[in-house]
Amino acid sequence: MMKILGIDIGGTKSIAGVADQHGTLIAHNRILTPNAHGPTINLQNILLAADEVVQQAGGGISAIGIGCGGPLDRKTGTLHKVANLPGWEGLCLTQIFSERFQAPAYLDNDATAAAIGEARFGAGAEVDDFVYLTVSTGIGGGIIIGGEPYRGFGDNAGEIGHITIIPEGPACNCGDRGCLETLCSGTAIARIAAGGLSDNPQSMLNNLDTPITAESVAKAASRGDGFAVKVWSDAMYHLGLGVANVVNVLNPRLVIIGGGVAKAGDMLFEPVTRTVQKRAMKALADDVKIIPAANGDLAGLMGAIAVALSDYLS
Amino acid sequence: MMKILGIDIGGTKSIAGVADQHGTLIAHNRILTPNAHGPTINLQNILLAADEVVQQAGGGISAIGIGCGGPLDRKTGTLHKVANLPGWEGLCLTQIFSERFQAPAYLDNDATAAAIGEARFGAGAEVDDFVYLTVSTGIGGGIIIGGEPYRGFGDNAGEIGHITIIPEGPACNCGDRGCLETLCSGTAIARIAAGGLSDNPQSMLNNLDTPITAESVAKAASRGDGFAVKVWSDAMYHLGLGVANVVNVLNPRLVIIGGGVAKAGDMLFEPVTRTVQKRAMKALADDVKIIPAANGDLAGLMGAIAVALSDYLS
Repeated sequence: MMKILGIDIGGTKSIAGVADQHGTLIAHNRILTPNAHGPTINLQNILLAADEVVQQAGGGISAIGIGCGGPLDRKTGTLHKVANLPGWEGLCLTQIFSERFQAPAYLDNDATAAAIGEARFGAGAEVDDFVYLTVSTGIGGGIIIGGEPYRGFGDNAGEIGHITIIPEGPACNCGDRGCLETLCSGTAIARIAAGGLSDNPQSMLNNLDTPITAESVAKAASRGDGFAVKVWSDAMYHLGLGVANVVNVLNPRLVIIGGGVAKAGDMLFEPVTRTVQKRAMKALADDVKIIPAANGDLAGLMGAIAVALSDYLS
Repeated sequence: MMKILGIDIGGTKSIAGVADQHGTLIAHNRILTPNAHGPTINLQNILLAADEVVQQAGGGISAIGIGCGGPLDRKTGTLHKVANLPGWEGLCLTQIFSERFQAPAYLDNDATAAAIGEARFGAGAEVDDFVYLTVSTGIGGGIIIGGEPYRGFGDNAGEIGHITIIPEGPACNCGDRGCLETLCSGTAIARIAAGGLSDNPQSMLNNLDTPITAESVAKAASRGDGFAVKVWSDAMYHLGLGVANVVNVLNPRLVIIGGGVAKAGDMLFEPVTRTVQKRAMKALADDVKIIPAANGDLAGLMGAIAVALSDYLS
């Protein structure tokens, strides 16, 4: 049995896992990696989490796949300036993991990785052309064309989180304004809700014991809290516009949406589908289905494992 | 010598031409086909223009390529509802031309066709991954990936003119609002200028003998007319945002821009490049060059000829 180590690095949490060559998970381990901790502490914790799953799997890793927000340099395994990983620029992740686990390591954009994972083990298995979108701390995209990942000239295609939705909108970590990610990522939904609380004293979001998250906004919206409904529906409208733009450019058969915010289920898929039906060109809107990631929460991890399998075996 | 008839159908003018298998034009003929004339009269005039070039070339057409605004059904050769060709929905163009010239006819989106033409005969000959944008009566896009046209699931990828730039912006012929095409196509530039004339009595655009066009706005802007400068630079800013979105999604090596509005040259390429450098992600902005179509004015015609060659010889 071949053992593959997958590492899914996120701006809020990260996952390490070991699977066999068929993508069957042997062990996995989720840890918090908030940006506030900085790259040194977060990387150390990710390596410890990886140690643990490798030990649980009985050691002997053949290859390592790492998924991470982009843009990045796939060939050297190094990160560029990544909006949701401040301070990580220039780190060579493949070297770090390869030295620790004595196996070849492959780096890919986390959303491209998740797209490859959905193509290999998930919702995109039967479909040649689809787009994967992760809506999480940030928003990332992966594009599958003819069954293969489309990476573009510099290996950084799919930066869907940074298409402009509102030209003079809120500032984005990437340095631009009004990016999709500033309007409907999990972080954005929490930020927008927190920013409106004082003007909405009647909202139940004022009574939380913990900081507001996209999940708490979704929950309050599902209970009919007027302010939460407004914040959530605005975010879903903007997400729908972003998906409609991608549909108009790529005419995909599927848009698969994963990431923490997609756990809201119908509360996300219904309004986003409605906006795409209304705002994308009819012939292209009729072609597309918008569905959840089959790998769910583990879409990034299964993607990292799929990247290692593809790159190692090719 | 093989003779290929190419037909480039536009919402303002159309071109018929005959070339040999190397793309050397033997004859071509440009005619006005304003939407106001409707499909019956325009099609009749296009057929007459085609008759003329076929006669000039000495007859004996081997294949016909037709480029036209989308969305359309490539397999049946039929148009869907095309924003810039009102009334043409359901027409089977391949049948009409095939019967007239007794040769197989192939229909493609005009911008995809122009992209294929630039890949075969033009600015994209040495590049695997690029995007072609026509900025004309409307705005259309064609995508080349790995040297081949990327068409998407329903053959209608590249509807870049209909990505949303201003969510609640002006109504578009496609039924949506704030599409790229409503903000910076030739038609849009003329419409926006005409709409602002009465509030800008000092503008030299008030003194034209003919209706305002994008060309007259460009000319007045180049002479320092304040109102024209504002209209033109807003349009170029919006076009730059649209190109930046495409760059973020596809990470192309080139964006080739053709169509009537691209005749403005540096007045278009400089501000659009500046906006892309500022608004696309840095790594992706660094990868891309934004350049004019090598086939210039004839990009659509050369594209239609390239489509016929590709489809007929495959």
